[in-house]
Amino acid sequence: MAFKAPVQDMMFVLNKLCGLQEIANLPDYEDAQPEMVEAILLEAAKFSQEVLAPMNAEGDQIGATYNDGSVTTAPGWKEAYAQLVEMGWNSPKTSAEHGGMGLPAAVNAAIQEMFTAANMSFMLAPLLTQGAIESIVGFAADELQEKYLPKLVTGEWTGTMNLTEPQAGSDLAAITSKAVPEGDHFLVSGQKIFITYGEHDMADNIIHLVLARLPDAPAGVKGISLFIVPKFLVNDDGSIGDRNAVECISMEHKLGIHASPTCTMSYDNAIGYLVGEPHDGLKYMFTMMNNARLGVGLQGVSVSEHATQHAIEYAMERKQGPTAEGAAPTIMGHPDIRRMLGLMKSRTEASRILAYRAAASEDYAHKAQDTELRAYHQRRLDLLIPIVKGWSTELSVDTSSLGIQIHGGMGFIEETGAAQHFRDSRITTIYEGTTGIQALDLVGRKIKRDQGKAALELVEEIRQTAAITAERTDDNADWPQLAAVVEDAAQTIEAVTNWLVERNDYAPQAAAVNILELFGIALGAWAMADAAIAAADEIDKGNNTNHLTAKLKISAFYVGHVYPKVATLKEIIFDGSEDVLQLDASDFEVP
Amino acid sequence: MAFKAPVQDMMFVLNKLCGLQEIANLPDYEDAQPEMVEAILLEAAKFSQEVLAPMNAEGDQIGATYNDGSVTTAPGWKEAYAQLVEMGWNSPKTSAEHGGMGLPAAVNAAIQEMFTAANMSFMLAPLLTQGAIESIVGFAADELQEKYLPKLVTGEWTGTMNLTEPQAGSDLAAITSKAVPEGDHFLVSGQKIFITYGEHDMADNIIHLVLARLPDAPAGVKGISLFIVPKFLVNDDGSIGDRNAVECISMEHKLGIHASPTCTMSYDNAIGYLVGEPHDGLKYMFTMMNNARLGVGLQGVSVSEHATQHAIEYAMERKQGPTAEGAAPTIMGHPDIRRMLGLMKSRTEASRILAYRAAASEDYAHKAQDTELRAYHQRRLDLLIPIVKGWSTELSVDTSSLGIQIHGGMGFIEETGAAQHFRDSRITTIYEGTTGIQALDLVGRKIKRDQGKAALELVEEIRQTAAITAERTDDNADWPQLAAVVEDAAQTIEAVTNWLVERNDYAPQAAAVNILELFGIALGAWAMADAAIAAADEIDKGNNTNHLTAKLKISAFYVGHVYPKVATLKEIIFDGSEDVLQLDASDFEVP
Repeated sequence: MAFKAPVQDMMFVLNKLCGLQEIANLPDYEDAQPEMVEAILLEAAKFSQEVLAPMNAEGDQIGATYNDGSVTTAPGWKEAYAQLVEMGWNSPKTSAEHGGMGLPAAVNAAIQEMFTAANMSFMLAPLLTQGAIESIVGFAADELQEKYLPKLVTGEWTGTMNLTEPQAGSDLAAITSKAVPEGDHFLVSGQKIFITYGEHDMADNIIHLVLARLPDAPAGVKGISLFIVPKFLVNDDGSIGDRNAVECISMEHKLGIHASPTCTMSYDNAIGYLVGEPHDGLKYMFTMMNNARLGVGLQGVSVSEHATQHAIEYAMERKQGPTAEGAAPTIMGHPDIRRMLGLMKSRTEASRILAYRAAASEDYAHKAQDTELRAYHQRRLDLLIPIVKGWSTELSVDTSSLGIQIHGGMGFIEETGAAQHFRDSRITTIYEGTTGIQALDLVGRKIKRDQGKAALELVEEIRQTAAITAERTDDNADWPQLAAVVEDAAQTIEAVTNWLVERNDYAPQAAAVNILELFGIALGAWAMADAAIAAADEIDKGNNTNHLTAKLKISAFYVGHVYPKVATLKEIIFDGSEDVLQLDASDFEVP
Repeated sequence: MAFKAPVQDMMFVLNKLCGLQEIANLPDYEDAQPEMVEAILLEAAKFSQEVLAPMNAEGDQIGATYNDGSVTTAPGWKEAYAQLVEMGWNSPKTSAEHGGMGLPAAVNAAIQEMFTAANMSFMLAPLLTQGAIESIVGFAADELQEKYLPKLVTGEWTGTMNLTEPQAGSDLAAITSKAVPEGDHFLVSGQKIFITYGEHDMADNIIHLVLARLPDAPAGVKGISLFIVPKFLVNDDGSIGDRNAVECISMEHKLGIHASPTCTMSYDNAIGYLVGEPHDGLKYMFTMMNNARLGVGLQGVSVSEHATQHAIEYAMERKQGPTAEGAAPTIMGHPDIRRMLGLMKSRTEASRILAYRAAASEDYAHKAQDTELRAYHQRRLDLLIPIVKGWSTELSVDTSSLGIQIHGGMGFIEETGAAQHFRDSRITTIYEGTTGIQALDLVGRKIKRDQGKAALELVEEIRQTAAITAERTDDNADWPQLAAVVEDAAQTIEAVTNWLVERNDYAPQAAAVNILELFGIALGAWAMADAAIAAADEIDKGNNTNHLTAKLKISAFYVGHVYPKVATLKEIIFDGSEDVLQLDASDFEVP
């Protein structure tokens, strides 16, 4: 099926729900006027539809292949990557100063969403490069920046993040890779697993960002440093030098994202350069990871969008039902098909709004002139990141599963393509921190640490939406019902936040994932209410498009079918934590 | 990991929750005394653990292969199948009169569960054969029975079900395959898709049960007849004769169950024999399908059980966490891991009880001497089948997904094996009727048609459990809380049943899948309460095993973490149906 970038909805979200015009008024973003942004998104849409989407199924079928240390990407991959670089799509949000397009994070979110929806495996290369760029821009010395940044920003070189070791998954304290000083550099040794695009044939060089320990490093997370380890050393004139002692020793055979090589990397006294201060590597990595987490959250939205489009197309074409009286109707006529599509579409749209709003907060946090406003949005961004990452990705697994279900038996056949979304989506709840890790981040670092400040600020904004909703009298929607739901969302988030701040036992850990989901659904209701208000305003102005009338119905569907789970989650959070803590290892022995 | 058949829990469910002793008192089941059943299950456990489970991963990796009309099963498959036949495991519940073991359906459920948990792809061959056996026993003329039954029962020959055609998925009215009379037989022509084990190399003959239309057939579902079409014709002395004009023309490339060949079959004037009366084929097929649906429901329990064991083993071995103070604890120490395992285990156990109880009702429906008791249990069986099929299979997708999540990044790597459960599970909500089809069957044929009679009978039994629970005073469990939940389950099922009986618009269709899930969860609470009562009784007798104390905690976990969703579903059912019906095709156009 043909993927279509939902530019109209993206512009609606940016303009009406993220205040794109106000973002364009921030320093450095003057060029991001709404008309210009729309033109950029329409160009990006072409690239996603004409270049990236057509490669997606074949990339999945053939995958990347490994042979004796080298990785060959799927047919056409190399050429498409060259086009991405050529057209300047590698680094839309890197500042112009560093050679990027300098677009706001909110606009970049839309571009990344459509590119990733078209071809998630492909877009992992630029996503990881972006992480490398951010840690180098943020923390590396000037000469390292001069040497490595320009070609990472263009995409001529790609970047990787090397955290995980076989014995150290989510627990980075257990990292054992070593770095020994030698002259102006270090000799890095160790083995890293799950390295996305750790080796490939699309770029001239690969810049690995590697966590390792110095000889004098303290134990635990406070003894980890960050190093740049290039695949090929770079001469002082910027030309490619000798091959470094880093090698891809194997590639994983995975459930999904087959075209994205997942490598085991071996470092054997490889020459590396320290980024920033010794022992501070984890701090740098977390900065870079926070952005990557927003990127993976967007992957959730992306896979959901593509899976939803795929299912819609099938439902509109597949004839089934009574034939005696003539032509069979399509399965779109069946209430349960519409129910499933309603779930798919409403949750995808709600999660898009949350993700873009997080990105908009990133813009304010970086560019607002008022210090307090910057701090406010930094808190908001920090709060939203684990929610966007955890909720959008969990939704994408369920949404792509519904996509298979709508296809019936055809959904289980690989050629149909519905199964690829399901397989690809399944990694998103795991990498860059599992949903469980996001949830602990949310309840611990993002809520309890500041005594609920950021969460309660958000509650105030939700209450403003509830008040505006309650005041509406037009007949575009059931406003009193919507207002009641939004007020309930505010109250529930407030109650859970207060509960978290008060509890100092293990209950918040037992409840964390349910709290993350509750925040996601409740914030989704807030977002869909704002969307309904904006749609109704436009309709009242006579702008009666199909997109806007559908938005009102999808918002009502969200209230009727998605929001009710909040009450269940609240009950499980408040009353069920003890049941978790009662379970011992012995209760799980197989009888 | 090594699969272990949960014989102790199976015997607990059979003895304490399905009244195995009473079933053994039914005519023909005298041999099924509990001690004998336990001995049989222990033998079956050996076969599942030592023969079937070790082939499962390789079968998935290599799969069945197609070449020019013939299908080669994975290495070792043929030999294992010969062993299944040799040991008499092909047809445990077929009556001794027809050459089977003559075991009660409830006992057969335990055997099928463990075999399928060990190797679902493999067990699809006997499952389909069983369907063929049942339609021949039930409806075919004596000479057809004499010719085909004996070798189907031993498993020397396998059977298939041929319903689906490219234009006719869930809608059997659209079937166009033809059957033209010629002498004592018919010439069958047409194409059938998604035929499980339609072709393979494990048996000497394959007996296809095929739906087709006679020349004088009325249009729609009332013009479909059922035919036996053997791969090889069978001579009068029972020996194999000529090859019939039926061929496997291609094999599907699927998301899961790779070792089970899914064939497109072409019939080109193939010789076939009418089963039963002309035009009554759909009735026969539904009889056979009802049993197959119970079998697929058990597949849900099976995949969930294996995925849960897999995750438990990983959680108990995987070290992660602080290392500074010595050995790292396993991830079992993390509350969220225990929460996920609690969900996996509690729902699997609840769905096991429901499935076995449905099978026990089959035994009473077939063998009870009292006519009313037989009718009562037939109604119960009919009611439970779509719930067991729909709920257990939907759970298995979610449970195997949690299994991946517990494995973290390793879960996404195919070698780990967690992903196979996820891929295999995904077909169970689709074949033998999607969850949507089961839900329509439940609300339409099983509830509305008899004005809620079967559902309200069940409500009475749930209320008895609530009363017994409320009367308990021992400290094995929080009995008042449990009693309140069971009473709520009864009230909710009653309310939904009454709502269904009253509504004559499209709302029941829009709500059907949510109603099915509500019934599943509510009946699960009833089952887990009965399990808690039985466990507490044993403990009070001094039989204080780990299995029984864990059962009480898992029952409490179900109340705290699974049951609360009932309130959400009730709200969506009663208040959300309109939102579904408001959605038009145009609302799904991609903006």
